[in-house]
Amino acid sequence: MARTLKLLIAYDGTGLVGWQRQAEGVSVQGLLEEALARIEGRPVSVVGAGRTDAGVHALGQVATFALQHSIPTPELHRALNAMLPPEVRVREVEEAEPGFHARYSARAKTYRYAIVQGEASPFLCRYAWHVGQPLAVEPMARAARLLEGTHDYAAFQSTGSEVKGTTRTVSSSGIVEQQSPGGPGAWIGALDAWDGRLLTYEVSGEGFLRHMVRAIVGSLVEVGTGRRQPEWVEGLLASGRREDAGPTAPACGLWLVKVVY
Amino acid sequence: MARTLKLLIAYDGTGLVGWQRQAEGVSVQGLLEEALARIEGRPVSVVGAGRTDAGVHALGQVATFALQHSIPTPELHRALNAMLPPEVRVREVEEAEPGFHARYSARAKTYRYAIVQGEASPFLCRYAWHVGQPLAVEPMARAARLLEGTHDYAAFQSTGSEVKGTTRTVSSSGIVEQQSPGGPGAWIGALDAWDGRLLTYEVSGEGFLRHMVRAIVGSLVEVGTGRRQPEWVEGLLASGRREDAGPTAPACGLWLVKVVY
Repeated sequence: MARTLKLLIAYDGTGLVGWQRQAEGVSVQGLLEEALARIEGRPVSVVGAGRTDAGVHALGQVATFALQHSIPTPELHRALNAMLPPEVRVREVEEAEPGFHARYSARAKTYRYAIVQGEASPFLCRYAWHVGQPLAVEPMARAARLLEGTHDYAAFQSTGSEVKGTTRTVSSSGIVEQQSPGGPGAWIGALDAWDGRLLTYEVSGEGFLRHMVRAIVGSLVEVGTGRRQPEWVEGLLASGRREDAGPTAPACGLWLVKVVY
Repeated sequence: MARTLKLLIAYDGTGLVGWQRQAEGVSVQGLLEEALARIEGRPVSVVGAGRTDAGVHALGQVATFALQHSIPTPELHRALNAMLPPEVRVREVEEAEPGFHARYSARAKTYRYAIVQGEASPFLCRYAWHVGQPLAVEPMARAARLLEGTHDYAAFQSTGSEVKGTTRTVSSSGIVEQQSPGGPGAWIGALDAWDGRLLTYEVSGEGFLRHMVRAIVGSLVEVGTGRRQPEWVEGLLASGRREDAGPTAPACGLWLVKVVY
């Protein structure tokens, strides 16, 4: 009888082609499947809660797989981290109920998107979108709140996507401001050296369309620069046309924070 | 009459072969020289204050070069940052006195070395050395202080180096502790998610031997784990034998913080 195992994973997506295994490049799924195959002695399929794109980071990605091997979870934890590169870390390993599925059992996901302003820091370029123009937070926060609820988010879906429905429920959508983000350049003790501003967009919902969070952020930035009014996003929900919305924000600013079951 | 220009530069050394131009790979010097040659219309030689190795970061590297072109400094600043990749940023551009030389005019340099403990974070692996064993800070701090002064640091020089003298003056050498470093994973709002500890070694002096800071850190970790007593480093200064000292700490934890003129 196979065990069902659940992993909590964090990764720096910078050098990765994303969650999903691709013909070329290093994927989180591929790294995990290779490591698990070495333990199991035959191929293991790993399912992830969210298929993060190339460059997208995760603090709390969840993955599940079936295993015949009887290796205890603490040992499995150590073995996986020993085989994975340092930019991909397994944070927790647990036995799950039979039938538990990282994607289908997920009730909600939370993403954050980081925007930095001020002098561009070389230590943040992999982790946040640097926007040179000044951004007004209040209108952005207002627009963000207008996106809460159950709506047709077709205007925020990448073109060429083919999914059955484009209606989703966003339970919360908001902007948080923070002074002097700094990143590694800051914690190394040079906090005074960079005088930046970090705007974080946080969104939670049961499911998201492809590139939806990044398209929302691109649209919120249109509002933040004053090119659009907050109410413009309501028009986007109504029109459903991708070309009416803002550009897709860069992948590097996106973080999969949490998956709720 | 050529102008002498001075740059203050920060870079994430992760994907670089270091400061110095190499036959292969991307170097900070190479990037700057290529950008400046496009402005000047002929080759420009750039000198850096410190020749940081591959993977070493800089918050305050200084570079000088001669330029015939009359481009104003604010425009040069913008032009350089427009041509450089985001992981290399020019922070300041100034006219300098004729004869000012980034390396020969430097009176002192400050380096920091970051060590993280606790759960390994994928967002710190490029910026700090993760040491799994517990480290006692007091003995490390004591050993660090014993390295201050004018000494023969031959034991902390990478083998195969050929420099005339190995006596240097270290004006300060100390350890600073900080809770929950976190890095980008922390500022994105997941500070609670990582429970780490950051130890920073900071050292200032007029000049350093090749790999000297990293060899000192490797030795301080020997003291921190309890394998050696703090006074052991005095014996290293006396013996001058590289093989008696600790291993060279990884490049990724090292930061060139400041150059004083």
